[in-house]
Order: sequence, then structure tokens, then C-alpha cells
Amino acid sequence: MNPSAADNPPETEARFGSALSTTTRVGVVRVSGEHKTDHLDDLAVEEPVEIQITYGSRAERQRRTVAITMRTPGHDAELAVGFLATETILQRATDIQAITTGRSRVTVELRPTVTVNLARLERHFYTTSSCGICGKSSLEAVETACEGPRPGQPLVAITRFHQLNQQLRAAQPAFSATGGLHAAALFDTAGQLLSVREDVGRHNAVDKLLGAEFQADRWPLAERILFVSGRASFELVQKAAIAGVPIFAAVGAPSSLAVQLARNFRMTLLGFVRDGRFNIYSGAERVRA
Amino acid sequence: MNPSAADNPPETEARFGSALSTTTRVGVVRVSGEHKTDHLDDLAVEEPVEIQITYGSRAERQRRTVAITMRTPGHDAELAVGFLATETILQRATDIQAITTGRSRVTVELRPTVTVNLARLERHFYTTSSCGICGKSSLEAVETACEGPRPGQPLVAITRFHQLNQQLRAAQPAFSATGGLHAAALFDTAGQLLSVREDVGRHNAVDKLLGAEFQADRWPLAERILFVSGRASFELVQKAAIAGVPIFAAVGAPSSLAVQLARNFRMTLLGFVRDGRFNIYSGAERVRA
Repeated sequence: MNPSAADNPPETEARFGSALSTTTRVGVVRVSGEHKTDHLDDLAVEEPVEIQITYGSRAERQRRTVAITMRTPGHDAELAVGFLATETILQRATDIQAITTGRSRVTVELRPTVTVNLARLERHFYTTSSCGICGKSSLEAVETACEGPRPGQPLVAITRFHQLNQQLRAAQPAFSATGGLHAAALFDTAGQLLSVREDVGRHNAVDKLLGAEFQADRWPLAERILFVSGRASFELVQKAAIAGVPIFAAVGAPSSLAVQLARNFRMTLLGFVRDGRFNIYSGAERVRA
Repeated sequence: MNPSAADNPPETEARFGSALSTTTRVGVVRVSGEHKTDHLDDLAVEEPVEIQITYGSRAERQRRTVAITMRTPGHDAELAVGFLATETILQRATDIQAITTGRSRVTVELRPTVTVNLARLERHFYTTSSCGICGKSSLEAVETACEGPRPGQPLVAITRFHQLNQQLRAAQPAFSATGGLHAAALFDTAGQLLSVREDVGRHNAVDKLLGAEFQADRWPLAERILFVSGRASFELVQKAAIAGVPIFAAVGAPSSLAVQLARNFRMTLLGFVRDGRFNIYSGAERVRA
């Protein structure tokens, strides 16, 4: 559970004003059949944020924009860290010297000793939506970047998976309000919900979730289930693989390349996890009857 | 409907064969309660494609990668054209000299007389998922790029909107098979479905749809409704605005910035268009009781 979500009044924070609003309220006309009524509706906030890094020796410090992404404000430092870590630009928590966040920019300062793979940075300048890494070379890149999860570990009982969706929904207040947010959640192998992040971009929700774990130096996430409220794209499964997650579960469908990556990487990939059912696309040995 | 999925052994077809498969079939374990059964499942194909342009005078011809995106194969030329046109890199259909498509690359050759806005190209090298243009400056950029739709035109009867979702679903065979594809559809003001495109990326589905219209020299789409199967993000509404679409309707929720763009631009924006209901976020005057 995300303690800050429970401790703070989320409504006040969120709804009007602050740069960190998750939702905002607007007047709408609600139509039902032929009937129109005026209404107030909650929307998921979508705003651009620029992710910058500073790197290089003290003598030759450099600053560089790595990405600009549309995101729901909140947990921006974790978003930037998760993005940089799943791109393997960050290798370990101690690579980070400082993080400064503004309304529309996060700057991650790398320690002078950190070597930045500029080719990897460049790659981002050519990618658009939902393209993490591309094609065959990227499958290999993921395998190079990290070891696969341990075979057959962890073992998780079938019934745990049936509880994931209900638990996520209960812990997703902004989605309930707006219907417009994706969520990513981390569970332990007993099916206990550990943390949730929401965002208009599903990749951002995963970056925020994995970024928090990276900052706490808990990678690889060898005893965790990553659960997402939408579909399982290649990009999301790739992020999970790089974070060392052995089990990826999605409420929606996986894509062909997501399944291929999971199989190559010996991850467990579950789709359509809802209403007491799911499909196992890869790594069935971790699902215990 | 993808005939090859039914006729061929899908593993062969999809995984190692044709570049144009929309769906592919894989073996999965289906779990219901505590019960497991082996099953064949259809997946949406996700593969990278590189969008290139060649431009410049005959004497100094240049080639440049504009984007790499994960997409569902098919309608790749339209995808590239729609992307370039909604980015205002292409201004009119006659800017295109030729298009060559391969398995993972589309090259759009611009006529030597076309001037390319390199700053606009550069911008893409900094953007990631679901970031079309960013923030306030982009709202202005959209307004600069094209006139808004004519006020109060077209007028569309409420009942037409109630039929959109059902018509789209009926025309969306790959979604029915996989549950893993977004769709974008174009309707006329009488609620007649004109075309549909499906893709793992919702921005791609919209690019394919709008790209076909651009190639046929039908922009601005002043008498059209653009309907999408998912949420209304800023990026999608922006693409519609640049194509001159006056009415944007979504099965899901809009984001805050999508509403702001639609209001600035005097577009009609509808959300949650399903089950005989919808919300009007902007431009209610085009919805006739």
C-alpha cells in the first residue's frame, strides 16, 4: 500500500490547483438517451514533463534532455528514475547524486563516476509511443542487460492471481474517479499488495512503480508480481524484465512481441487476469495449482 | 478479418513468416478457478517499424529517420503518411513523390520542392510515448497549424452517437479475436461508418486512418466524426484537430489536456460513448437533440 495515499487527504491535494494534481474537475453535459444534464466530471490530469540528466566529470559537466513524456503529475522523481533505470542508463541506486523536480521538469544528477551510454540515449531520439526497444536486437539487449529470473521461482498459488484485480481496484482511487488512468501494482508472492502507481500513460505507471523500488535499492525484484490494469505490451514486459520481475500479470491482452520476450526470458506472463480466470502465455511452472 | 489466421498454421505464419499479419496464434494455458486447460489464443501482432523520409533538392538528397514505433503490421504507408501529416511535416498529398514499404521500414520520398521543418523533426527525438506536442506551446502550435472547425457545424443528432460503439465493434474483427487492439474509425454526420483501422498503439490506429484520408486529399475532414475505442489523450485530439476533424468521440475517458485542447480549438469532444450514454466535454452545440 502506498502510505502517502492513505495518510494525506488525496482530494485536497489532487483536485484543484496544485501542480501535483492527479485529477481535475470540469463541467460537462451528460447525455443519457436523449436527455441532457449538466454535471461535474473528474478528469485524469495529463501534463508534459521533461526528463533531464546531468553527467560527466566535475570539470566537464553536461546536461541533456533524455525524454519528454505526457504524464499525470505526482511521483515525478520515481518516474524519471524508473525510466532511466529500465533504459539501463542507471545501473544502481548509488549512481544518483541528486534529483530536482519542478512542475514540468525532473533533473537526475548522476555521480561523476557514472559512465553514460550515449548510444542508448540517442536511441530515444528516434522512438515514439510505446516503443521501448525495437525488435530482435532489443530482445537480445534485454538478455544482455540482466540475467533472467530463476527457473521455477517463485511459486505462486493460482488463487493469489484471482485476487489481484480486485485488490488493485480497491487501491486505485483516481481511476474510480476518472476512469482515465492506468495502474501498475507490485504484489508479493503471497498476493499482498505492496504499492500502486497511476498515470494516463501505462508505461509511466510502471516507471513510477519500478523507480521507487530502484531508489530503495530493491532490484532485482525476484520475489514480486507486477500487475497492470491494461494490456501487456512489449515495452512493459521489457521494463519488468530489466527490473528482474519474474511474473508479469495483466488485466488485458498481451501482444505477440510481449509473449516472445517473456518466453525468451523465461518470465511468467499472464493475461486477462480477471473474474476468476486468466491465460498463462509463458512460464506456467511458477503457477501452482 | 485476417483470413490467414484461419487458413494457415498460425505459429508458422505469424512468428516466422509474413510481414503483414495482424494476429498470430500461440498455445496458452487457460486457467479458470483452479482448473487448467491447454488452448490456442490469438494475439495482436506488435512489431517495430521505422519511418524515414528523403527530402531536399535533387542535387542534395537527404535521408532521415523520423520515428521508430511499435505497430501492428498493415497499412504501413498510411501510418507513415498519417504520422508525418499530423506532425505537419507533410502539408498536402502532392508533397509525396513515392512511398516504399518493407517489413520494418517505410520511406516517404518528398518532392524536391517541399521544405522540411527540421526543428519539428528534432522535436521527435526528444519525445517518448504518448507525447505529441507538449503543453501550452503545443496548444498554440495546433492553433497555428490550422483553422479551427466551423462553429456549430456540422450538427449531428444525439442518436447517431449512441450507434457509434456498436458499429465499431461489428467492424473490428481483430479486436474480437485478440482483445488486444485499439481501433479508430471515421463516420460521416449521418452516423455511417466510413473506415476503421486497428493497431496495438492507439496513436497508430489514428495515424493510419487519417493518413489514408490525407493521401486521398480529403483533409480537412470537416464533415467527419473520429471515434476511438479507448481513451482520448491529448495526442489523439491533437491529431484530429490538425486533420480538421470537428467531432472527436471516445469510448473511454478524456484527459485534462485533451479537454483543454478541444475547448481552445472549439472542437466537440465526447467521452464514455457507450451503452446509450456519453459526456460532452466541449462543443455541445454540434450535438442536436
